[in-house]
Parts: sequence; C-alpha cells; structure tokens
Amino acid sequence: MSEYSVIGKPIKNVDGVAKVTGEAVYAFDMTLPNMLYGKLLRSPHPHAKIISIDTTEAQKLPGVKAIITGKDTPGGKWGLWRRYPELCDQTALATEKVRYIGEPVAAVAATSIDIAERALDLIQVEYEPLPAVFDPLEAIKDDAPLVHEDFENNINATRHIEWGNVDEAFKAADYIREDRFTLSSQHHAPMEVHNALASYDKGTGRLTVWASTQSPYFLQLGLADALKMREGDIRVIKPHVGGGFGGKNSTMPESVNAALLSKKTGRPVKIVYNREEEFIATEHRTAMNLAIKIGLKKDGTILAKEVKIITDGGAYTGLGATTLYLAGTFITFPYKTPNYRYDGFRTYTNTMWSSSMRGFGAVSTVYAAETQLDRAAHDLGIDPLEIRRRNAMTPGYEAPGQYKVESCGILECIDKMKERVKEKWPKLEKDEGIGFATFAYMSGGIFNWIDTPYAFSGAMVKVNIDGTVDLFTQASDIGQGSNTVAAMICAEVLGIDVEDIRLHLGDTAITLTDLGAWGSRETLMNGNAIKAAAEEVKKKLISVARMKLGENIVYDLVVKNKRIYLELRPERGFSYYDIVRDAIKENDGEPLIGIGHYTPHNKGMISPAYGMGIQAVRAKVDRETGHIELRDVIVVHDCGQTINPLGARGQVEGSTQMGLGFGLCEEILMDNGLIINPSFVDYKLIRFRDMPPIELIDVPTYDPEGPFGAKEAAEATASPGAAALANAVYHAVGAEFDTNVLRPEKVLKAIREKEKKDRAGK
Amino acid sequence: MSEYSVIGKPIKNVDGVAKVTGEAVYAFDMTLPNMLYGKLLRSPHPHAKIISIDTTEAQKLPGVKAIITGKDTPGGKWGLWRRYPELCDQTALATEKVRYIGEPVAAVAATSIDIAERALDLIQVEYEPLPAVFDPLEAIKDDAPLVHEDFENNINATRHIEWGNVDEAFKAADYIREDRFTLSSQHHAPMEVHNALASYDKGTGRLTVWASTQSPYFLQLGLADALKMREGDIRVIKPHVGGGFGGKNSTMPESVNAALLSKKTGRPVKIVYNREEEFIATEHRTAMNLAIKIGLKKDGTILAKEVKIITDGGAYTGLGATTLYLAGTFITFPYKTPNYRYDGFRTYTNTMWSSSMRGFGAVSTVYAAETQLDRAAHDLGIDPLEIRRRNAMTPGYEAPGQYKVESCGILECIDKMKERVKEKWPKLEKDEGIGFATFAYMSGGIFNWIDTPYAFSGAMVKVNIDGTVDLFTQASDIGQGSNTVAAMICAEVLGIDVEDIRLHLGDTAITLTDLGAWGSRETLMNGNAIKAAAEEVKKKLISVARMKLGENIVYDLVVKNKRIYLELRPERGFSYYDIVRDAIKENDGEPLIGIGHYTPHNKGMISPAYGMGIQAVRAKVDRETGHIELRDVIVVHDCGQTINPLGARGQVEGSTQMGLGFGLCEEILMDNGLIINPSFVDYKLIRFRDMPPIELIDVPTYDPEGPFGAKEAAEATASPGAAALANAVYHAVGAEFDTNVLRPEKVLKAIREKEKKDRAGK
Repeated sequence: MSEYSVIGKPIKNVDGVAKVTGEAVYAFDMTLPNMLYGKLLRSPHPHAKIISIDTTEAQKLPGVKAIITGKDTPGGKWGLWRRYPELCDQTALATEKVRYIGEPVAAVAATSIDIAERALDLIQVEYEPLPAVFDPLEAIKDDAPLVHEDFENNINATRHIEWGNVDEAFKAADYIREDRFTLSSQHHAPMEVHNALASYDKGTGRLTVWASTQSPYFLQLGLADALKMREGDIRVIKPHVGGGFGGKNSTMPESVNAALLSKKTGRPVKIVYNREEEFIATEHRTAMNLAIKIGLKKDGTILAKEVKIITDGGAYTGLGATTLYLAGTFITFPYKTPNYRYDGFRTYTNTMWSSSMRGFGAVSTVYAAETQLDRAAHDLGIDPLEIRRRNAMTPGYEAPGQYKVESCGILECIDKMKERVKEKWPKLEKDEGIGFATFAYMSGGIFNWIDTPYAFSGAMVKVNIDGTVDLFTQASDIGQGSNTVAAMICAEVLGIDVEDIRLHLGDTAITLTDLGAWGSRETLMNGNAIKAAAEEVKKKLISVARMKLGENIVYDLVVKNKRIYLELRPERGFSYYDIVRDAIKENDGEPLIGIGHYTPHNKGMISPAYGMGIQAVRAKVDRETGHIELRDVIVVHDCGQTINPLGARGQVEGSTQMGLGFGLCEEILMDNGLIINPSFVDYKLIRFRDMPPIELIDVPTYDPEGPFGAKEAAEATASPGAAALANAVYHAVGAEFDTNVLRPEKVLKAIREKEKKDRAGK
Repeated sequence: MSEYSVIGKPIKNVDGVAKVTGEAVYAFDMTLPNMLYGKLLRSPHPHAKIISIDTTEAQKLPGVKAIITGKDTPGGKWGLWRRYPELCDQTALATEKVRYIGEPVAAVAATSIDIAERALDLIQVEYEPLPAVFDPLEAIKDDAPLVHEDFENNINATRHIEWGNVDEAFKAADYIREDRFTLSSQHHAPMEVHNALASYDKGTGRLTVWASTQSPYFLQLGLADALKMREGDIRVIKPHVGGGFGGKNSTMPESVNAALLSKKTGRPVKIVYNREEEFIATEHRTAMNLAIKIGLKKDGTILAKEVKIITDGGAYTGLGATTLYLAGTFITFPYKTPNYRYDGFRTYTNTMWSSSMRGFGAVSTVYAAETQLDRAAHDLGIDPLEIRRRNAMTPGYEAPGQYKVESCGILECIDKMKERVKEKWPKLEKDEGIGFATFAYMSGGIFNWIDTPYAFSGAMVKVNIDGTVDLFTQASDIGQGSNTVAAMICAEVLGIDVEDIRLHLGDTAITLTDLGAWGSRETLMNGNAIKAAAEEVKKKLISVARMKLGENIVYDLVVKNKRIYLELRPERGFSYYDIVRDAIKENDGEPLIGIGHYTPHNKGMISPAYGMGIQAVRAKVDRETGHIELRDVIVVHDCGQTINPLGARGQVEGSTQMGLGFGLCEEILMDNGLIINPSFVDYKLIRFRDMPPIELIDVPTYDPEGPFGAKEAAEATASPGAAALANAVYHAVGAEFDTNVLRPEKVLKAIREKEKKDRAGK
C-alpha cells in the first residue's frame, strides 16, 4: 500500500473537461480587438540568391496594413544553442539568400487571411538559383555547395564521446560486427499547427506573445535575440497547446514576424500556419547515416561499441546539435558498455532543418543498436532477451565522465517481460514474430546550451484564506499532462486535493523560469521545484499547528487529507483549513507563499535520472504482399514512482504509436528539397483502427533525485517501437533492414533477399 | 532639492500611450471565443410584488441560449458590509418583490445583443404594485411602506459620534447658528459603463470574471457570496477601467448574472449596460438632509458642533453605511472641534441606492459646513480666511477616540491662499465674488467592514536577470494614475526607471490582496506594500554589493540611478545590472523576490493620514438671468510628499470639475422613483469649454505613515467646489442657499429674497 494520498493514483487530466468540451483556449483560437492576420511569403527554391523583392503592388491592396522583408527586420539572429553564437543562425526573413524551400522572405499583415494571401501573390521576388545539396554524405564533400559560407564542408556541429579503450577491447572481442543504417526523418504532426499572436505596446515598448510553444522561456529568449529587445520587455504566454512532440522548442518565423508586424502596425497580429506550411516549414526528426560496430564476448557480453553518425541537419541548427549529442549517448543505453567511442557530425543541407522529436537522439539509434543486437544474438545463438539481460545496467552504473544511472529497473523489466511473453503468447503462428527492444531516456537535460542564468525550474505556491492554492510555474503542458502532475505533487505535499489547486503555468512574466517541456524534464525538474515550494508552506503550517498543540518537538506532524496531526497520535490535530487561517493571521495577513527551484547538481553531463524498460511487438508478415500486421504490444516500464498512472499510460500509448509509425509508415518524402507529401492524406500516421492493443506493466523503482522517486515516463517508449517491429519481422521471416519505415515493397524485397541468401547458403 | 530620482518628478502616465492610441483593453472591449451577450430585464415599478414571470415565448426565440429568473439563482445575498450580514442585502435578481425602478428580475444570454433585447420584450412579468416611498423624511415615519420588512422605519444604518461636552460648550458660546440643508445626489458618469465578462469552467468549477471594477477583491468576495462559491475558485481580473469615482465598489447585477448565465450555458457571457442603464441602475452619490449647529466664540473660535444627517439610502446598502460614518467625521475637518455630536441615519427608499462617490462623506458635508462658516464669519465680522485660519488643525491634532492628524499643512495652505489671492485678484468686478472652502480627506479607510483577513495591501516584486522588474499587486488603477504611482515607488526604491517595471495589477489570482481603489487608499496603503516588497529586494542587492566591496559594515550603501555604491564614496560601487546578475547567481538562479504588505495599526478609526487644503473660486453672477460664470480657481494643497505632480494635477482638475458640477449643474432628477434625465443630454456635466483655469499650489509636508511621506492627493479637492462656489455667489450678491446645484432660477430666486430682506431691513 502506498503511503501517498494523491501520488500514484489515476487522476483525470485537470484540463480534460475543458479540452473535450472545446472550452480550452489555444493560441490558435485567440483573437484580440483590432487584430490583423499575418502570412509569410516562402521561397520556392532550395538554394537561391535573392536579387530583389518588390512589394509595390501588394502594398496597394486594400486591407494590407504592413509588409516587411528582411531589410525591415532588426537583423537579430537566434537559436537554441545560445552559448555558441555561430550556431544562432536563424533569421526572421531571408535577406541575402534562401536555404530551403519554404524559407520566408516577406511577411504581410492584413485585415483578413484572404487579403494577406492575395498580397503574397502580388509580391515579386527575383531569385538567382544556386546549386543545392540535400544528402548529408554529399554535403560534406569538398566541392559541395555551402549552405552557410562560414561552415566548411557544411559541418554544423560535431561531437566526440569516448571512454575505456575501444581499440584494445575490440581486439579482445570474440565477435565483432558492423552495421550501417540510414534512418529517415519523421514529422511531429501535432494537431495544433504552429501559430502565434503578438501584441506590441508602443507606449511601453513591451511585447506580449501568445504562442503554441513547448517552452515559453525559450521563445522569450529567441524573441529577445531576434528583435534585439530586453528579455524582461517580452512576455510569452502559452495557452493550451495541441501537441509539440519536440517540434515547438525553437523560436520560429511565425512568432518573430507576428511581433515585427505588430510593432510596425501598432495592432495585434496573428500568424497561423496551414497544414502544408506545418509540413514544409517546421522542424522534424533528424535523419541520419549511422555506422555501428559492436564487439562481444561469446556469451554475449558487450566489450566495445563504436558509433559514427552523420545527421542531415537541414538549413539551420534548432536543437540539432543536441540531437547529435544525445544520439551518441543513448545508443549505449541501457547496457553496460565498458569501452565506447562516438563521432557525430551534423551537416547543413538545403532542406527544412531537423531538430528534436519525442525521444530525440534515441529513436533512430535504438533502431540501429537493437536490431544489430538481435542479429548478433542470433549469430551467437543467444536468446534475444538473454543477451539484453546479460548486458543490462544495474543501479549506480556509470559511464565515466558521461552519466550515472541511479535507479535502474531494466533487469526486472526484462525478467517481467520474459515471464509475461511466455504466458501471453505461448505459441506463434506461421510468419508471426516477436521482436524486443529496450529503451531508456532522460529526465530532462543537464546541459545548458541555452545559457540560462536561472534555476532550471522554479515554482511558487500561494495558499489563500480558504485553503485554495495558486500554483505558479512556467512548466509547459503541451498535452502530456504535466499540469496534472504539477497539481498532484503540490496536492500531495499540502495534503489537499488536485481540485484545490489553481494553476498559473506557462507565462514568462508571472512565473519563475522553467526551461519548458522537452527531454521529459517537467516531472522531475519542475516537480522538484513545486515540491520545494509547497514544502516551504507546509513547514509554516506545521509550525503553527505545533504551536497550537503545544506538543514536544520530538513528535512529527503530518499534513494529509486536509488535516495536520501528530503522526503517532492522529486524533490530535486540526483541520487544514483552520491552520491555514491561523497561519495567515500569524503571517500578518499575507497569504502563505512558498518558493522553490531545482537545478541538477553533480549528475554527470546528461540527466539526473533515466526511465527505461523493454517493449515487445508481436507482428505477422504477409509473405505475398510484404504487409506487416501489428498484432500486440507489451511495454514493461520503469519510470520510478509513477505520479499519475492514467497520464503515464496515455503517454505510453502515444509514444508507442509514434515509435511504431517511425518503423512502419511515417516518412517525409522529398524531391530535390521539395516535400511532396505535405498533408495527412499523403503522410501516413498509424491510425486508431490500425493500432494494436498495448499492455503496460509497471516496474516501480525509486529515484533518489526525483519528486517522490519519480523520473522520466513514457517518452522513452517512443524509441523501441521501430526496432521491436523490425526484430519481429526478422524473427518471423528472417528479413533484415538497414532502414526504418518497413513499407510492404521494402519488406518483400528483404524477404526475397533472405530467400536468395538461404538458397545460396544451401 | 529633492533627494529622490523618481518621486516628485512629473512622470507621464504609464498607461497613457495605450489609452490615447486606443490600444488599452477595457473589459468593455473584450471578447472570448463562443461568447454570448447578456441583458437584464428591469422592473418598471419602484415597489411591487412579483406575481409571476413567464419566459416561454422568450425561450423560443432563436439565438436565446439561457434565461434565468430569481429562482434559478443560488440565492446568495451580498454586500460590502460583510461584517453585518443583515446589511448584505443585494440579490442577483429580485424574487419576491422589486424595490426600485430598474431592479433586474430576469437575465438573458443570447448570441447577439439584439436577440437578447428582443428576448427581454418577450418575457411576461406580472407585478402587483405596492405603495412606495422616495423621501427619507417620509421613509422614517411609522406609517411609511417598508422597503425591507426587517428594517423598522426603513432605517438601514445609524451612526453616533460624540466627544467633549457639546451641551456645555454651546452654553459657553458667544454665537450660535443652526442651518438646514438638503443636498442632492450626483452621478459618477464614468466614460466606461458597468460591464462584466464571465467565463465559468465546468471542468474545474472555477469562474473568471473580467470587469470594470474599483476593487477586484471586493468583486471576488461579492461573487463568492452571491454564487455560494469559494473565493479561491473565483478569479477577478480588472483590465483598464474607464472611470469609477466610487460607483464601482459594489458587486452589481451585471457581473453576478453574467457568471450565472455562463455557468448555465458553459460559454462566456458578457453584460454591458447601456448609458440609460448606467444612469438608472448604478449607484450614485448619497443625497441627504442635514442640520448643522455651530457654537463660536466672538473671535470665531469653534467651541461646539452638532450635526444631524438623514441620508436617502435607496433600496440597498452598498457603501451607504460608510458614507454615513464618513459624513459625520469629515464635517469636522480640517478644524479643531473640541466638542462634537453627530447622529446619522440612513434610510431605505424605493430608488436606486446611493453609495460612495469621489470624496464620499465630505462633498455634501463640506458644502453645509463651509457655507455656514462664511455666514457666521459675516455675522461676526471676521474675514472668511481668518475664521478658517483661527480654527485650523495643527500637526498631531486628535479627535478623542476618532482620529489623529499627523502631518497637517492646512495653516500654510490658508496663508498661501491669502497671499496668492491678494496678488492674483487684487480687484473684483461688480457682482463678482470670491468664495473659499477648505477640504480634507482620508488616505484609505482603517475600518474593515469587508471583514478581510488579509493585509489591506500586499505586493510582490520580482527582479529578472536583465534588471527588469515584475511588480504584482491588486491595486486598482481606475484612471486615477495609481499604476504610475506604483511603478514610481518601486523604481525609487530600486534606483531604476519607471520603464524598467512591468505591472501586473488588479488580478485576484496572481497577486496579493489589495482592497482596491476607494477613499484614496492606493498611494499610501498599496504604496507602503510596494515599498516594503522592493526594499526586501534592495536589501539583497546591498548585501551582495557589500560582499563584493568587502567594505566595513558601518558604511551605508545607496541604490540609485542604476548604481549601488557607498554613500560616502559614490565612486566605489557597481552597476545595478551587474549586482542583479550576481544576486540571482547567489540566489541559486532564483530571480530576486520581495514581498511586502501594509495594514494600518493604531491609527484611530478613520485613516492613517489626511490630505487637505483650501480652494478659492472666483465667479461672476448675472443678476438678470441668475447665471453664474465660473472665472477662476485656485487650489492650495497639502498631500504630503507628492509622488507624481503630473498625476496629482490631473486628479485635482478632475475632482475640481466634479466638485463644481455638484455645485452648479449636476442633478439626478426623479419623478416618483423614475430618473427622468438618464442621458448626457439631460444630465448636465461641466464641459471642457465651461471649466475655469485651475491654479494649483503645493504645500509639501511629510507624513510619517506614507511612502516617502505621501498621503491622499486630489480626492479631497472634489469637496470644496460647491461650497466655494456658493460662497462666491454669497459674497458677490449676498444670496444664500440651503441646497447645492445653483441653477439660474434658484440663484435668481435667492437674489430676489436677499433684495427683499435688504429692503425689509432698511
């Protein structure tokens, strides 16, 4: 039995009713008095010089209130890697040249969307097309066209990681294999497209922006850099957000140009991307070429790994440099890897740029590592679960200078999976296979490329006279349920209900900074800040209750179920409400305020804690058509202490769907830099009817760094799907793949190759 | 030379540009997605039983989304005198009977205002008219109809004040006179009518209301009582407000019914009064019958005063009971009154109720006291300024058990006035007169009828990494400029500019409670809270700077002009920005937060401090037409340390205009409970072209209780206008008045009476 009243209970999303009834307001829905509509004119060329832009005719169109081009912007460059100014490469509007199809070159504000669109048609841009480069392997060649002149060989960022003695270890290995993979991109495909509403106040010179963002703070910084304004003069407000999945960390042209147009017109301006723009002109998962070499002992013990990755960066940086780093890290998880070497390169190419996406750095690399491991196990005659078991990290495992894994339930997860699979799927049909893949992910990043001087998460709790609580933080609920988690953590500490807590989240002006929703950081980092803030208030309540009781100070008091009482004599105590009233009186009429913050300290270079687990996919392959039928999924999951099982389950479902989509059908198709499937008709997501059931088994651990022992939950489960699927196909029909997205024709081809090999082998 | 960098400098209103460009958003302007429009059906009877209400036909009208009558409301009663439940007499909709013409009996929410109005026409209400009472002197009679059955003789509230020995003192007096006055009402006539936008969230059971209010906190409490909800589940947000003047303290039917309709429909609902509704169905200045008896020594020294007031309360309480109390107090100001007795009665009548209005309790009483004093001075052969000088309060003057006046510049004000008038108006034309009247008013009330457990004012200051400041308080800028004053006080303490401060004001959820804008409380009370909050941060900055300097702790540091330095060696110090950065680092990445509050302690029963002064009006009377021409005004003013001379001047101008309007032309005309001039065509305000120039002379004092020595500014100057005007007419043509509003026919009549008396006297 849990000792908690709220933590670990399935709590319905605090925003749930508002969302299903349509009451919830998204930036998308918002209007302001006198608001104008903005639109961006986009480049039709992947790489071209801008010779001239003529807006004369467009200006004349009635209803057009402002048109800006690159020269009308303050010229501020920005990016998320603020520590490295050369990686701050984004601009509001292209000025000298365009670098991808869809890059904005002009922005219009008009009294309606129609007029704004008609104005775009009237703007005359003269381009001089330049040779373009789309393939990262081409991009690094000496004679490749340069996307950014200052970056030789189009190398945007590099990363080297190394520990142990890799070369010696490979010499000692009984078995070595090397595989090469080409992993494709994937689109976030959020229900809510990118959009921003900006309102510039000429009187005070201050800007307010409502936006669909994962990090109001990042957007505030991006806007400050872009507009050359003070951070403190910019207020970013994140209303409800209809999905981010990693695609809404960067400050994108819609918010910057909305701000510029608002500044120019003195009226609020809103820019909403249409679905096509969402596909062609927002970030996506980083495609990569990956070589992975592994050295094993005969018994399957990993001795060494060597990984090389060249990522397809696209035209700008975004969180691409972070992806490169995380890829080099998470390809080792969750296995003990005594000797490791990684070299990563990110290239600039003439495409929309790649960045973070759910499980970034892990999804593509897990595909490579986990399909390779299955092949090695096969070669060595070891059971796929057994080889994973043998190498599994144990609590306290450390990769020198890189990371330390405190709580670690991966062994139990594998054991539970073994047990459950045996029981659930005792017998397989013909051409049916089970594929496994482990997964692990961070609970927020330690690295501080954004260069914030603030604590990573901050929170303030205000307890009012009637016992209700106002909770303030910048934590971003983008649909993942962090609002509910925030309320639950606060409620647990103060011994009240989630309903007693009113949230004020995602507003940079009225809350303490939080870095936002990425890398599964909110539960642990923001949760710790909230816990600290609530505990400050709890201390005050206990102190007042103790004073009233006149009890010996050696006896502890408990704050629970709206009572404050002696732990050893629960009948001696008071109502929470009475103590709140007394405490406010004692506080000379000030409501009770607690402030807390969290920054990881001495936790290595990656994350304070890691969620992990293993996934099994049962699939059947049609040997005639190459069609794969997803039949069943089991996820065994260690996310420390689950805060909200209902929320965690929902997130596991969504992550699994995305992970399987990466393996089965989601693909951004490109022709000379042109995305040719920018719609939900042509970009194939796994739909509800095609999703297999998912069984979720929880392996609780307690992470000493997390609030109530919690850590990352569910984002990690985006990474095993493609690998487990490929492994299932491998075990069903023996087909091997060096790419993801197992389209029927690809599966068929692999089956044919396997059959040929088998025949040749005979 | 002032030692201040910001305080005392003429600073442009921080909202000024937004207001003049139309960018400022008022609740009036707001819309929300899916918003409905609400309208109230009002009683045509001053007093009637409600027999039945039939909404059948109205419900059928397409576009009508909800109709409610009294029985659909939770039945919560509310009022501002929450300490006395019997005075909480307001209801959302009349259920049993209506008590004034305009009282709402049903509310409609529809998709447009037109449809809502058409629906009102379709609601059938059957009334049984009851005998009504309109005159307070009739209302207290035993056989008068009862407005509220529980209140005998229609007496709503009473107030007795007494000190000294009044009867003995009258015996000792050389000169006694008694005058009776009938003082009329006055309408606030704000540019922005009453309106509220309510949005109830069914998922969380929480309500947000944007309203044109003087006190978001009072509205939050009113709504909680009316709707039987928890305070903490109600959030009131006050956007810009287009004038309050005392008429927006009460929770009025528009906000309560908007909330009820939103709860019923699940959609946001907005109710905006039209100008007619604003006149007939919102509060107004309290009309009264007043008897004042004064006993003087031959030399003009006041020995005793006895005052009786019966006010015309109207149908409900509002702040009427407070008006009654303040009237009994401020009729003694700013004179030493060794013996005093006051009996006040507030009556219920069948009219829209009276409440607070700019200078409430002082405007009507000053008219009586100051015109009486001129007559007495005339009878005793004493100069009008001299009789005022002789009785003027001096610093530290105390009315036993009632009030103590610390800073007190009234003597200097009178002296300055004497000097200036002599110099400026050496000679008068025929039928021209100069009238004087002194004035004094409070800096917020000490009395706590609202029964708040919170400090009267609270504030929070957050200093960000770039040195910008977020300032949070509930202080209400309703046009009087308190936002600017708040920013100035904060800027002064932190040694920065007003532009560095972003205000978050008037939102009950995100700020510490403040009681709102009434009785000129914001500068002193909220100012003290802000000062305390900012000083907490300043302490941190000084501590960090001291640490860096390594200086002996006996040397003080100064925070000024964006530097922090040794007071005695100004060259030794640091930039404010650097110290902020260091302090946040030292604070482990938390922004610098200071919290402050203020509640008056041991300051008597009225107010912690009193602004005061004297006004002179020069006017010419046309003996043929009775027309008065306002020619010139001088105001000599002690408001302690003026925070913002520009703002104070603006407020003096507005107050003077209202005070003169009360004396010259503003009159709510009523016929059997029906207001017959509910429009700006028929309700006469003094317009710009008719306003005389106003010369403002400042007599600075320092009030020990105020922030930087500040206290009430300008509200007091609403009270002398009518009296000074009447005195000017008295001195010009000898005409005496026992009422305000000196319409030409009244003046002509008074002149004729004076001439008759003179002839009779001859």
